[in-house]
Amino acid sequence: MRTAARRRVEVVGSDGDRHGKQDALAREEPLEIRIGGNRFSVTMRTPGDDFDLVAGFLVSEGIVAAAEELPTMRVVSGIGADGDPTFNVIDAAVTGAGVRLAAQRARTVYTTSACGVCGLASIDAVRTASAFPILPVGLTVPAAVVAALPDRLREAQRLFDTTGGVHAAGLFDAEGRLLVLREDVGRHNAVDKVVGWALREGRLPLTRTVLQVSGRASFELVQKARMAGIPLLAAVSAPSSLAAELAEDAGITLVGFSRGTSFNVYAHGHRITV
Amino acid sequence: MRTAARRRVEVVGSDGDRHGKQDALAREEPLEIRIGGNRFSVTMRTPGDDFDLVAGFLVSEGIVAAAEELPTMRVVSGIGADGDPTFNVIDAAVTGAGVRLAAQRARTVYTTSACGVCGLASIDAVRTASAFPILPVGLTVPAAVVAALPDRLREAQRLFDTTGGVHAAGLFDAEGRLLVLREDVGRHNAVDKVVGWALREGRLPLTRTVLQVSGRASFELVQKARMAGIPLLAAVSAPSSLAAELAEDAGITLVGFSRGTSFNVYAHGHRITV
Repeated sequence: MRTAARRRVEVVGSDGDRHGKQDALAREEPLEIRIGGNRFSVTMRTPGDDFDLVAGFLVSEGIVAAAEELPTMRVVSGIGADGDPTFNVIDAAVTGAGVRLAAQRARTVYTTSACGVCGLASIDAVRTASAFPILPVGLTVPAAVVAALPDRLREAQRLFDTTGGVHAAGLFDAEGRLLVLREDVGRHNAVDKVVGWALREGRLPLTRTVLQVSGRASFELVQKARMAGIPLLAAVSAPSSLAAELAEDAGITLVGFSRGTSFNVYAHGHRITV
Repeated sequence: MRTAARRRVEVVGSDGDRHGKQDALAREEPLEIRIGGNRFSVTMRTPGDDFDLVAGFLVSEGIVAAAEELPTMRVVSGIGADGDPTFNVIDAAVTGAGVRLAAQRARTVYTTSACGVCGLASIDAVRTASAFPILPVGLTVPAAVVAALPDRLREAQRLFDTTGGVHAAGLFDAEGRLLVLREDVGRHNAVDKVVGWALREGRLPLTRTVLQVSGRASFELVQKARMAGIPLLAAVSAPSSLAAELAEDAGITLVGFSRGTSFNVYAHGHRITV
């Protein structure tokens, strides 16, 4: 499945001068997620790593917390408007307590992949929903490592070089080694793909890792880090007020404005060492 | 209602050197939208221009298309966890065909503000849902005006200067004069606020205007332009493949990578003149 689509574009100068060129655009297509055959959610995503996306989304939603609770996922193929086969429906089998929760959620309007927080009334709800505690000890990361992560993320981001239009989320260890990188037109999807990879690899909770994301840090991204047990979230740009409040409350170290030589710490700076 | 929140942060150098400072973060809070007293959607948004946001969201969802169909909106106040009053619920009265549609939508999982397309199965659904035709004539814009819009948007964006964390959407006329600018942590919310302003001012459809947005152009933003009758959408960064396809299909001029001296045109370049 290709993550970039080629398209003919016109390059126009401010003087009105025009010429054509081939351009590569990040693909964006709807993905329908079913649980046990029942439609659960639809998200717009960049095709690729779809099983990781579904697994991570179900972690973020509190439906599963271990690989055993998600024994199988299968692609339900269809036929698109152009007559070609489509691969935009995934049906997940879920076991354990998540089965009942999934059925409850499917009856509300508040849960879609693009708005992971919509079903949650408050910071309290996020805190109580996670299967994994965020421990105050266990991870320390040198400031030099944290400062270098955005560059390492960009180096690893091959797709971005082609399309210029996708977000990235990279999971690193405490020495700054990249464990996995995932990309998507939606930042929340890139994070779900990383978390889903970890679930499928049996690595949850991600107690000793750092999650670096392109762009900004919203409440939703801190929530996703919380659900996966990630103790340090770093964003290239600024966090929102609610992202900082949730990080403070959840015990998560929140880094923003990470720009090579320095960065800002919005909560729990004790995990960052000289 | 303040759009920025002050917070104490630590600035950390890559050498581990630290100092504290006061920082301003973009506020992010949930807004519950009710229609006739019934909960319709919840979105995370930056407080401010909330009536515009609700009005524009209801345009994007196809619930209303004129100010008469949205006779009143009122804030339902509550008490937050800290004991202070909250203003995060708005109840809208809707008249006309939208009443029935709102009731239908409220029964599905697919509609939230963060995912405007989730309720729509295909490009076809977007095309047929809009009350306003996109006419091939009626608007032409000089290339020099289009190229200058990102700078004009940034100049007008005072909040961004403070927080560095919010998106902006600006509506301009064909001569590049700013009609309205709205900001939000969510790009889709900024666009909804612009469209809602237009609805409340009796200006829909926005036949002779250009919408300039910060960041990227997703399918969802093209959809919102389509629902408001906006014939030219320009983004600072790249569009997705589906954004370009919907623009092509809907007759909307789509501009991306708009960077001062040049820009790319992904669909319907005929509206851009020397």
